Amino acid sequence: MKALRFENGKLNVAEIQRPFVESEALVRVVKSGICNTDLEIARGYAGFSGTLGHEFVGVVENSFDAPELVGKRVVGEINAGCGVCEKCLFGDSRHCPNRTVLGIINRDGAHAEFLTLPSRNLLIVPAEVSDDEAVFIEPLAAAFGITEQIFVEPQTRIAVIGDGKLGILCARSLALKSENVTLIGKHAEKLSLAGKSNIQTSLLESASKLSKSFDIVVEASGSESGFATALNLLKPRGKLVLKSTFQGKTNLEMWRVVVEEITIVGSRCGMFAPALELLKDKKIDVTDMISEEFSLSNGIEAMKAAEQNGVMKVLLKA
Amino acid sequence: MKALRFENGKLNVAEIQRPFVESEALVRVVKSGICNTDLEIARGYAGFSGTLGHEFVGVVENSFDAPELVGKRVVGEINAGCGVCEKCLFGDSRHCPNRTVLGIINRDGAHAEFLTLPSRNLLIVPAEVSDDEAVFIEPLAAAFGITEQIFVEPQTRIAVIGDGKLGILCARSLALKSENVTLIGKHAEKLSLAGKSNIQTSLLESASKLSKSFDIVVEASGSESGFATALNLLKPRGKLVLKSTFQGKTNLEMWRVVVEEITIVGSRCGMFAPALELLKDKKIDVTDMISEEFSLSNGIEAMKAAEQNGVMKVLLKA
Repeated sequence: MKALRFENGKLNVAEIQRPFVESEALVRVVKSGICNTDLEIARGYAGFSGTLGHEFVGVVENSFDAPELVGKRVVGEINAGCGVCEKCLFGDSRHCPNRTVLGIINRDGAHAEFLTLPSRNLLIVPAEVSDDEAVFIEPLAAAFGITEQIFVEPQTRIAVIGDGKLGILCARSLALKSENVTLIGKHAEKLSLAGKSNIQTSLLESASKLSKSFDIVVEASGSESGFATALNLLKPRGKLVLKSTFQGKTNLEMWRVVVEEITIVGSRCGMFAPALELLKDKKIDVTDMISEEFSLSNGIEAMKAAEQNGVMKVLLKA
Repeated sequence: MKALRFENGKLNVAEIQRPFVESEALVRVVKSGICNTDLEIARGYAGFSGTLGHEFVGVVENSFDAPELVGKRVVGEINAGCGVCEKCLFGDSRHCPNRTVLGIINRDGAHAEFLTLPSRNLLIVPAEVSDDEAVFIEPLAAAFGITEQIFVEPQTRIAVIGDGKLGILCARSLALKSENVTLIGKHAEKLSLAGKSNIQTSLLESASKLSKSFDIVVEASGSESGFATALNLLKPRGKLVLKSTFQGKTNLEMWRVVVEEITIVGSRCGMFAPALELLKDKKIDVTDMISEEFSLSNGIEAMKAAEQNGVMKVLLKA
């Protein structure tokens, strides 16, 4: 089968053997989405080697332990726990210390014709949700997951920093709970895309006038300056939600966190089921963020396209 | 009156006029305590100029708006809000943007024969609490305040990093709520002082074997490495309480906060009333942390003594 792989510091579309793991379900990938994490891996920052990709929708070809899934259209939770540690036994395989992660840690990913995952990781996609919508489930779950971690009311004043895909998904998710969401970014055209969804927008250069006016700030820009901007925007005793994983060390004014008694909430993944419900009930639009679709054979061109300024989500069709 | 002042980059014990603020209470200081913040101010890091000191016990000499306080032994909340902003109107003058802070921001402090504070900042000290105990009320409130911000159960596994005064007060405060408190520090003699109070202790060099085993870690060492140690000690989804205000920027691996979904809680001050109750009910010992007492006239020597390795709390007697 074909697979978009990162090996020995190089991207290539390789012909490899179809995967087989007796204890896992075999999924034929229909579409997959390119995430910024894929781009970072391809820059060699993450120490991953193998098939890229963790955003997908597919059809189950085979499952020994859950035959009722065969033929069903599914999405899949990307963390696969060991199943025996304290975290796994408490149902939190997302934080299993020995977990593998689809296309990210020790597990071949979704930019391929087939993948395997434990059957318990798979969720059936309702008929109301299109393939193009379903492929957004992982980042949408990560965005909507913020509302699992912190309490949001209609009057809560929220700023989201970063007008990339994750920032827009965060802003749209939070706008389902609060009437006071402002997206802050550097790109007028990306902000206008988000602005359609009852979200206020502000260019970063004008954000200083919003100083100390937000109860919650979500940092989704992935830049070191995003953290400083967030501290400036927060009211004392506010909450800063960190979504983006800038690699390496970051130079931060942590004393301000103490003096203003800020709470910082690290936020990585979210539950898939509530995010699927949002799509099923048409509460959130995601497909307007698709910029281009490539065939898997043109995976390298797709990765190049995804790196361009102004390009949002790029999909691969297996 | 005499006052220990920091002016023009220099410490001196000056003879200045007794303070008079018509809208505030006049307090005769009985004893004051030297805090690490005083030492930092005297190094010129904090931009403060005036009389140092914010830990005190005294007797009210005069109060126009609360004459019932006159003659009473009191401690005082150190933040004085503007009284008219949103924060003050909600009763949170600790975060008033225009606040003054005793001996720290735009307000002469407690290392003097007299000080003034708004009458509403003062709390009467119960007869059961000695002067030596009462002078610890501000740092004890700051330590016990952690339990206002986060939920602690008897089985909650807690590590406190830093065996200085603040670290020991944090460990002792948390040990009132949890049976599983470990104090981690560099000084065997300070750890043994804390170890008397049903607290486990560990030298920092042995702490690596405790990796990923705590639900809550309190960073009270004030060093950049303390943050990294804290991240290593925390379980995924754990809580990191930041108590110490290292100045300047800190180099931190914030991506780990995201991946492990850590919550960081900035924590500066606490309520005085519950801390006074602890002392009144003899639930916590503080006086074993007093190393030396000096007269106010010898304030400069007292500051030098407080800087020495192994010295804990140094008191001034007005």
